Amino acid sequence: MIGSCALKRFDSGDISGMEQRFRTQFINSITGFKSLNLVGTINKHGMTNLAVFSQVVHLGANPSLIGIIVRPDSVPRHTLANIAETGYFTLNHVLESFIRQAHQTSARYPEEVSEFTATGLNPLFSEVIEAPYVAESNIRIGLQWRETIPIPLNGTLLVIGEVVEVFLPGDCLGADGYVDLNEAGTITVAGLDAYHRTEKIVRLPYAKAENY
Amino acid sequence: MIGSCALKRFDSGDISGMEQRFRTQFINSITGFKSLNLVGTINKHGMTNLAVFSQVVHLGANPSLIGIIVRPDSVPRHTLANIAETGYFTLNHVLESFIRQAHQTSARYPEEVSEFTATGLNPLFSEVIEAPYVAESNIRIGLQWRETIPIPLNGTLLVIGEVVEVFLPGDCLGADGYVDLNEAGTITVAGLDAYHRTEKIVRLPYAKAENY
Repeated sequence: MIGSCALKRFDSGDISGMEQRFRTQFINSITGFKSLNLVGTINKHGMTNLAVFSQVVHLGANPSLIGIIVRPDSVPRHTLANIAETGYFTLNHVLESFIRQAHQTSARYPEEVSEFTATGLNPLFSEVIEAPYVAESNIRIGLQWRETIPIPLNGTLLVIGEVVEVFLPGDCLGADGYVDLNEAGTITVAGLDAYHRTEKIVRLPYAKAENY
Repeated sequence: MIGSCALKRFDSGDISGMEQRFRTQFINSITGFKSLNLVGTINKHGMTNLAVFSQVVHLGANPSLIGIIVRPDSVPRHTLANIAETGYFTLNHVLESFIRQAHQTSARYPEEVSEFTATGLNPLFSEVIEAPYVAESNIRIGLQWRETIPIPLNGTLLVIGEVVEVFLPGDCLGADGYVDLNEAGTITVAGLDAYHRTEKIVRLPYAKAENY
């Protein structure tokens, strides 16, 4: 039965005492389900890069800003270098049909191999930004780099872009601006590697104090 | 059919020309499914506060750092003030059984009304942190404030805490540290107000370049 098993408590000592990979899985799991996007970039020599990201945040709608958390010493370091070179990156939702290819972009390929080539996903270029989109994706966001904010506590970076282009299935856009991700087939990730489809429960109206 | 409708394109001009509430829904939707947590805090006079958040990011596992994006001029301003006063906050996953109460915490209540009282959700205190947990929640994270990073582009803040306590259903914790959120009943949100349950598709092993 959902949510019915007995709760177990972990304190600071339990957490710091966890074996490193166990703790990584554990801490990556507990924040909840996460956005799943492939980040597409290109360097000044035309070499494309594709990396799966689950740490994407909406920062504001006016201007339309989205941030991604990047760890400079990990596989996505090309993402960071390419954004610095061209000033552009794309976010591409993942569908059930290419989960394995999306996950596989997290492997450490040699310098000269693009994750597009390695996984068989296809780059798609638009007229307004240099970075490649993923042709197989149905919701694609083109971003222009605006700012990179260092997080000194652990050396990660918050890379912020402004939305300059969006592609999405027209039928999935509601009259109020809501985009039906479930209808669009977007999936979500838990932890480092657990992919989930969704089912809508309910949309709720804007909450007012007097209506309760 | 999922993901099969024709793609529609929006450029910068289309986006900046959107009616404000339409754009807010639109931009909040397109990043993908989001973590859904109730953030619990308390002020120095013992007044509790509870606010629903979808912008939660995992920043690192060693130390275990989690960040939340806060807009200082919006309803969660009490969250910010309380964290500054006590140095603690909690994250509490939302279950299907209390979606409406969770959503209702986004209403603008008078100073003297705690969202716990207003919604009927129950505060639960532990021995190690001052901030209240949500008793109805099955995955609860206690955080000690570490740093607040301003995002000058739009005046939002990234508030970072270190995980000092975790409660979760023991049966949902795997041998590798993975916490099965689907099994635990955790739900996810799309846009501002669309709540979804999930269904696991697959967990994939650590990706290696040579295995592809």
